[in-house]
Amino acid sequence: MEEILRQTLLYDFYGELLTEHQKQVYEDVVLNDYSLSELAQSLSISRQGVHDMVKRSTRLLNEYEEKLHLVERFVDLRGKVGEIHKLTENEKDDPSMQKIGQIAAEILEEL
Amino acid sequence: MEEILRQTLLYDFYGELLTEHQKQVYEDVVLNDYSLSELAQSLSISRQGVHDMVKRSTRLLNEYEEKLHLVERFVDLRGKVGEIHKLTENEKDDPSMQKIGQIAAEILEEL
Repeated sequence: MEEILRQTLLYDFYGELLTEHQKQVYEDVVLNDYSLSELAQSLSISRQGVHDMVKRSTRLLNEYEEKLHLVERFVDLRGKVGEIHKLTENEKDDPSMQKIGQIAAEILEEL
Repeated sequence: MEEILRQTLLYDFYGELLTEHQKQVYEDVVLNDYSLSELAQSLSISRQGVHDMVKRSTRLLNEYEEKLHLVERFVDLRGKVGEIHKLTENEKDDPSMQKIGQIAAEILEEL
């Protein structure tokens, strides 16, 4: 998995277990690609302080994944539901297939 | 949802975030239905001590659910995949349907 995708998924699943401050900094630096210096300036803390916060949050998110494996399960599940969705695509005349395709699309949207 | 099912799901998803000791006590009392006095005796702590540990673990598990909503998402997802599985049951002659039924069954087993 690409690192940025992995970081986004980790944050999607476990972000709510970080503090508001940790979330803010993680979002800005990792997901929105702000520079450390830029953020350090706007938060009035040192560049090193921002760097340490991101590092700590990343470690926490990885620790949650090591314990709960949700991202791993999610990627596997998403692949399987995607496979189901694909199998319905060429059989749209069949009403059951159509219904299955619809449910699979709903799941993929929610995942 | 029945309370015992909810407690089992909460534990399935977030149990790994409890300490070994909390896990042990939660499993014994909530999932395996040992009596508080029995467990208190075997752990050499007070009955009230066991009661407090279970209460605290239950609160922790519920707090994780309030933040991450995994049990809620899981129940919804399981319902939808179950629906897909059901739709394939009467059309087992169709190879695509057969394949979809198989994938859905795999997902249900893993969930």
